[in-house]
Amino acid sequence: MNPYVLKYGGTSVESIDQIKDVAKRLAERKSLGQDLVVVISAMGQTTDQLLELAASISETPDRREVDLLLATGEQVSVALLSIALKTLGVNSVGLTGRQAGIFTDDVHTKARISRIETDRIRQHLEAGEIVVVAGFQGVNENGDITTLGRGGSDTSAVSLAAALGCTCELFTDVDGIYTVDPKILPEARKLDSISYEEMLEMASRGAKVIETRAVEFAHKYKVPVIVGLSTGDYPGTLIKELDETMEKRVVTGISVDEDCLMVTVNTVPFESKNIAKIFAAISGENIMIDMISQTAPYNSFVNLTFTSKIEDRFNIKAILEKLKAEFPTIDYVIDDSVIKLSVVGIGMVSQSGVASALFNLFAEHDIDFYQVTTSEISISYTLNAYDRDKAVHMIASAFDL
Amino acid sequence: MNPYVLKYGGTSVESIDQIKDVAKRLAERKSLGQDLVVVISAMGQTTDQLLELAASISETPDRREVDLLLATGEQVSVALLSIALKTLGVNSVGLTGRQAGIFTDDVHTKARISRIETDRIRQHLEAGEIVVVAGFQGVNENGDITTLGRGGSDTSAVSLAAALGCTCELFTDVDGIYTVDPKILPEARKLDSISYEEMLEMASRGAKVIETRAVEFAHKYKVPVIVGLSTGDYPGTLIKELDETMEKRVVTGISVDEDCLMVTVNTVPFESKNIAKIFAAISGENIMIDMISQTAPYNSFVNLTFTSKIEDRFNIKAILEKLKAEFPTIDYVIDDSVIKLSVVGIGMVSQSGVASALFNLFAEHDIDFYQVTTSEISISYTLNAYDRDKAVHMIASAFDL
Repeated sequence: MNPYVLKYGGTSVESIDQIKDVAKRLAERKSLGQDLVVVISAMGQTTDQLLELAASISETPDRREVDLLLATGEQVSVALLSIALKTLGVNSVGLTGRQAGIFTDDVHTKARISRIETDRIRQHLEAGEIVVVAGFQGVNENGDITTLGRGGSDTSAVSLAAALGCTCELFTDVDGIYTVDPKILPEARKLDSISYEEMLEMASRGAKVIETRAVEFAHKYKVPVIVGLSTGDYPGTLIKELDETMEKRVVTGISVDEDCLMVTVNTVPFESKNIAKIFAAISGENIMIDMISQTAPYNSFVNLTFTSKIEDRFNIKAILEKLKAEFPTIDYVIDDSVIKLSVVGIGMVSQSGVASALFNLFAEHDIDFYQVTTSEISISYTLNAYDRDKAVHMIASAFDL
Repeated sequence: MNPYVLKYGGTSVESIDQIKDVAKRLAERKSLGQDLVVVISAMGQTTDQLLELAASISETPDRREVDLLLATGEQVSVALLSIALKTLGVNSVGLTGRQAGIFTDDVHTKARISRIETDRIRQHLEAGEIVVVAGFQGVNENGDITTLGRGGSDTSAVSLAAALGCTCELFTDVDGIYTVDPKILPEARKLDSISYEEMLEMASRGAKVIETRAVEFAHKYKVPVIVGLSTGDYPGTLIKELDETMEKRVVTGISVDEDCLMVTVNTVPFESKNIAKIFAAISGENIMIDMISQTAPYNSFVNLTFTSKIEDRFNIKAILEKLKAEFPTIDYVIDDSVIKLSVVGIGMVSQSGVASALFNLFAEHDIDFYQVTTSEISISYTLNAYDRDKAVHMIASAFDL
């Protein structure tokens, strides 16, 4: 067997015509003797429309039932693509997540893949069929349908490639990974390759081309991932293990997270158990937090600042209101007018001076930032959204991106 | 346990508001201590819309994939109804056909239920949950999703009631079974009860309130079925085993099948194997035929006439065209301007004279008919569609319907 896992996102299967186009391209590759497993997302805005239906009944619809609802989106596109393939005379079979053997944990709407039983997929491949698999979904050990959260189809595809021991191609509406999102910096360069580590930093810091968990999975199982355009044959960007060329680059790219929320909690009574309690309350609701900073105690009070996702705004507000009952001194500000800008590069590990160069740039260009955090291969800042273009241009030109 | 199986059709769950209404009514019944299994159909026209999507790719979409596609319709309404129930504080769980343990044979788009594993449903009932089940769908032994054909949700509901040993209530947009379709005869009377045998004749001869296979299933497993209005508390019609009151009625009702096709095949070389070949070719395509009549041979040729469903028009034409290659003498007419009118009554078994009375009526009122067939408890005629109202009125008034 010579399998390839290909994934087409929602923007690649928005219409019947697009589905027919995808079918044609798959038929061509099949005629070259390739064994294809195709992961697809729901058509266009289907997932959002289904969520709106649920929202019209309840503000907090039951998550198990939401998964039952959302999973239909991919099931429709899988069925239609398989019909389109068969109409072209290509043998194919459409599979739900469950039929494809994708098992997950029990965390509805944000499930993680626990194992993949590839027997059925292999049988269909051996029978010469293109296997079309519903992305974004799986089933828990109880047989309940689960979904993997936003961008989950990337994770489905990479996991299937890991299980089948092959390359994963993610087709989307951009032709690869850029040093900076071209919507922000049109002159940004496309990268031929990027290491898992860098991609992980870029994705987790706002680059939306590929989902963070998918990169983690690819890294863990060493799955080569190609990100490219769904409608063309241009070479995409290969995400793979670090090589020497990559190490020479000091800065690989900039990612900007605009769906960012900066939360400041002032005058928290200074005791580590209090701070632990605040973060426990937030993480107990499955809210991701990032870029935590804390002031030194003053009059036995500290101020905490952290960033989170804009979608968790109301959840965070509700949690902080509850905490005020317990800690009447606290006071909070939720600011959605900030962005998170991250400078990523594997070369930072060995090349010092990037941080210092960046601080100089910010000072020279008179851009204020609220927080700064560093990892081995990245430096992130929160700054005012209106400084976005200025900051991106100054860093891109300084590091030749 | 005190289970009830309830089924709501597509017209009862066309909108979110209707789904909320159904949820309220279920919550009320749950509060009376009833254990409820609720079978629902896809919302309104969803199934037709999905079929149109498939048709926009292929005129003959693969049936396995069509089932994968169509099954999403019920999955959506199940999820939404379960969300609505939980929003009212009622414990509930939504199940696909597979999750509900509904197994079928392999005949995609027209599958038959082979067995039901009720373990999971019983567990949820014991946990105090309302179990919402996707009608119209099941899964074959290979784990592929199947659908049961038009009206399949009725069959799902009756089969579940048989498996659980309880009554089945079918809620629809009419408040019961009438002696004649009130759209044709507004003064028709609603029946309090009707025997399985009569209902089977009525349903198979055009009464659309309940699907024929569902009645067969109810009859076989002695499931009491109540047909009633989904929005009210009016008593519906009970379909059950024959009792003495029923036997006293000579004629119970009239059913009219307007989706009827009369096919005449002329000058078939008279040999029984030829006739067998023609019917084998038609039934090989899963086309139902009914009311067969044959002329006496003349010059070693016979003429055949049979009725079928209007939806099979093009299939039949294609088959007859093929047969012409083998039997060049044959010639055919497909007539869609006829209706099938059936007079049904369990009393006909013991009371002779109904047939004779009917022939007199047709003669007196000068209504021509093309074919007549009789069963133990019914007499059916094919006649011109424009004679429909005249024929219905004369029979209804003669037999006090």
